[in-house]
Amino acid sequence: MLSEFLQQLQPWAESHSLLFGNDTAAYCIDQRRRYQGQTLAVARPNSVQQLAEIVQLCAQFHIAMVPQGGNTSLCGAATPDQTGQNIIISFERMNQIIEVDADNNTITVEAGVTLQQVQQAALAANRLFPANWAAAASCQIGGALATNAGGVNVLRYGNMRELTLGLEVVLADGTIWNGLRGLRKDNTGYDLKQLFVGAEGTLGLISRAVLRLYPLPTAHATALVAVDSPADAVTLLRDLQAKVSDRITSFELISRPCLTLLHQHFPKLSSPFEQAPEWCVLLELSDGGDSEHLLELLATILFEAGFEQAYVAQNQRQAADFWRLREHIPEAQRLEGVSIKHDISLPVGAIPQFLAECESHIILQYPDANIVAFGHLGDGNLHYNLFLSDKTALIYQQEAVINAIVYQLVAQYNGSISAEHGIGQLKKSVLREYRSNTELLLMNSIKQTLDPLGLMNPGKVLI
Amino acid sequence: MLSEFLQQLQPWAESHSLLFGNDTAAYCIDQRRRYQGQTLAVARPNSVQQLAEIVQLCAQFHIAMVPQGGNTSLCGAATPDQTGQNIIISFERMNQIIEVDADNNTITVEAGVTLQQVQQAALAANRLFPANWAAAASCQIGGALATNAGGVNVLRYGNMRELTLGLEVVLADGTIWNGLRGLRKDNTGYDLKQLFVGAEGTLGLISRAVLRLYPLPTAHATALVAVDSPADAVTLLRDLQAKVSDRITSFELISRPCLTLLHQHFPKLSSPFEQAPEWCVLLELSDGGDSEHLLELLATILFEAGFEQAYVAQNQRQAADFWRLREHIPEAQRLEGVSIKHDISLPVGAIPQFLAECESHIILQYPDANIVAFGHLGDGNLHYNLFLSDKTALIYQQEAVINAIVYQLVAQYNGSISAEHGIGQLKKSVLREYRSNTELLLMNSIKQTLDPLGLMNPGKVLI
Repeated sequence: MLSEFLQQLQPWAESHSLLFGNDTAAYCIDQRRRYQGQTLAVARPNSVQQLAEIVQLCAQFHIAMVPQGGNTSLCGAATPDQTGQNIIISFERMNQIIEVDADNNTITVEAGVTLQQVQQAALAANRLFPANWAAAASCQIGGALATNAGGVNVLRYGNMRELTLGLEVVLADGTIWNGLRGLRKDNTGYDLKQLFVGAEGTLGLISRAVLRLYPLPTAHATALVAVDSPADAVTLLRDLQAKVSDRITSFELISRPCLTLLHQHFPKLSSPFEQAPEWCVLLELSDGGDSEHLLELLATILFEAGFEQAYVAQNQRQAADFWRLREHIPEAQRLEGVSIKHDISLPVGAIPQFLAECESHIILQYPDANIVAFGHLGDGNLHYNLFLSDKTALIYQQEAVINAIVYQLVAQYNGSISAEHGIGQLKKSVLREYRSNTELLLMNSIKQTLDPLGLMNPGKVLI
Repeated sequence: MLSEFLQQLQPWAESHSLLFGNDTAAYCIDQRRRYQGQTLAVARPNSVQQLAEIVQLCAQFHIAMVPQGGNTSLCGAATPDQTGQNIIISFERMNQIIEVDADNNTITVEAGVTLQQVQQAALAANRLFPANWAAAASCQIGGALATNAGGVNVLRYGNMRELTLGLEVVLADGTIWNGLRGLRKDNTGYDLKQLFVGAEGTLGLISRAVLRLYPLPTAHATALVAVDSPADAVTLLRDLQAKVSDRITSFELISRPCLTLLHQHFPKLSSPFEQAPEWCVLLELSDGGDSEHLLELLATILFEAGFEQAYVAQNQRQAADFWRLREHIPEAQRLEGVSIKHDISLPVGAIPQFLAECESHIILQYPDANIVAFGHLGDGNLHYNLFLSDKTALIYQQEAVINAIVYQLVAQYNGSISAEHGIGQLKKSVLREYRSNTELLLMNSIKQTLDPLGLMNPGKVLI
């Protein structure tokens, strides 16, 4: 059967741009080099019709399909298993911006365009596509949708799910579902697109999408503010919202160990603090007015609140300096050595107590632990990482124990063990511990209904 | 079997507050008095446990269940059929606000609280729950979620779907699914709550919800602006967004026939226009600053754009007068007589052309037609209604023909035949014409998976 499948595939080799053998190597390993698999071939369709043809053929011969966008998953969601009995479907040739509708504030794109292409196409039409994160230049929209990715502007604009108005999806049997509507109100039966956003390619393959655009903000105000505690950061967030409403675009919490690491590994990065404070907040406001008014508003609010170390960026260069601090934290960690990482979310008000409690639990068991906590406080998402004195890969032997401490406390606070990176292969077994039987049964029944042969990205999320 | 079911029900009569016979009459007719059904009994559980007990019993005896909130559906979604073989489940005793978490900007409520109760509880915590529409005082949150209701603030804040963070649902077999998480980022498998929002009770019964709250805007600016055409209204919307970003809360389009009807039936309503313009826009901005600044900003923008008849409300009373005009349009229509109504949505930029084309198609077939078009231009939702010279219920004989004209053009523009009112019984057959076979198959397979016995609100949406 396999050889017949490969035979059927042959005539398509050129038009569908198939890759075999060594040419598939780069597609078989994830970017963190944690997962390595094998594949029969990489199919690179250049249209939804070609995509549907591949899926139909795979369905006919019961060949598993592994969709791959920019291959930037942090959870191994786009890497095949080691059986080599699957097909990788790469979206790199489905990379067209189809339409920017400025009047409707929407953009229609193929799944293989990068996030940066979408941002730029929006900008060219004087619009904002607000999703943004580190991998913008290489990640693709299809993958961003499949993982319901988040990033730094979720507080104001939501995740990829909230930014999606319409989808086109190739279903498990190769049928094309065209749901490319650009409507903000549409209540005609079940909202089918919601099934595919965040499903990590396990229910169908997203081929095109209609995304929301926003008016381009013309005013920005950025500040770096030392706070005494995470609780004070939450108070600042709510005070600020009371005074500027939802014009807060980002609200990032940074702990002293982050600043220490930055100082050690990037001593030339400019920081306004003479001495690293226990905690600080990097925040940004934006609106459609003029920056002068917004800067003045922000300065007044911070002054009246009595912060002793509050620095409002006086120009774009200084704002970029502040952001550079935040953006270099992951790299400073990498340079320091191997750490155990968690991408968690919590009700915002629970974060101060969680941080205190989790630290005390960890220190009890690991007195040498150095906890590097930072993240998107505004939307409740923390990157909660920790070093032990041994900074080599040997630390991974402690991963299960440390995960259990962190995740059990997350569960106690009704939080999430995966805020914005998804499940993939990495957290599949953890998922089974932290979602109820009812939830797992519901998910499995949806999977069974949409992908009865289990061919869509198997080994990810559920089964 | 039926008698055994009723026998099993008896011991619960008091604790579950069951109603029988004549006491069920008010629950069996919809508010527009277009649908009248019959029921075995109305169950009024006061907790999710009681709700689950009723559902389990119904599942055991294969008794259909019709969930009912405030009974304000405009599509007969909460009214039973005429077999009398079903149970109505009323949520009126599940009416508790469970928690307002101001730090997390969330509110947790039972399904039977009214929209107004949620708005007021939010306000008491200095927060905004932004959903709003005419039936706020009587509609219930469970129904609002089940229809993914919209209203006047969708442009800024989204529909009920976007305002929902967590749900608790009683499934078709009586299992309680607890998904009451208040998180803005959570990617742990399929997002199950999306299945139940907008499903009109056909997949499970929403018992509790965690909803998003927003900072309370402290500044408001309202204006009524005469524009030459719908195209000019779209241009104004986009210009305004470029200058104030997403601080536009509402942007309503009103046509001259609306103003004429208002003048005829509510001559005392104050309008700033000496002569009714061809079209006008009612718009509102809000933010967390002071009203003076926002008013000045709006006045400057409208002045610079050169509008000759642009009235910025100088105080709250005047703003309320402007809104009163908009809010009295439906009642003015009712007083005028019977009309054929459509709740449609379109890509915003397509609205001007749609209006021109649809009018010409209708006038060709109905030279006496008077088209009363108005609605939420900002989010693409139009209420597109029309009178013929005969203003009695006889006009309904033309409904199918007129619907076909309107809906076919809506489909041509990739719009929706139901923007914010849902499908219920009213549009069930129309849905089958305007969603593809693939979509209907997908919907039916989801229905079959979650409600294999077909007991959840049968006869609504799909089957």
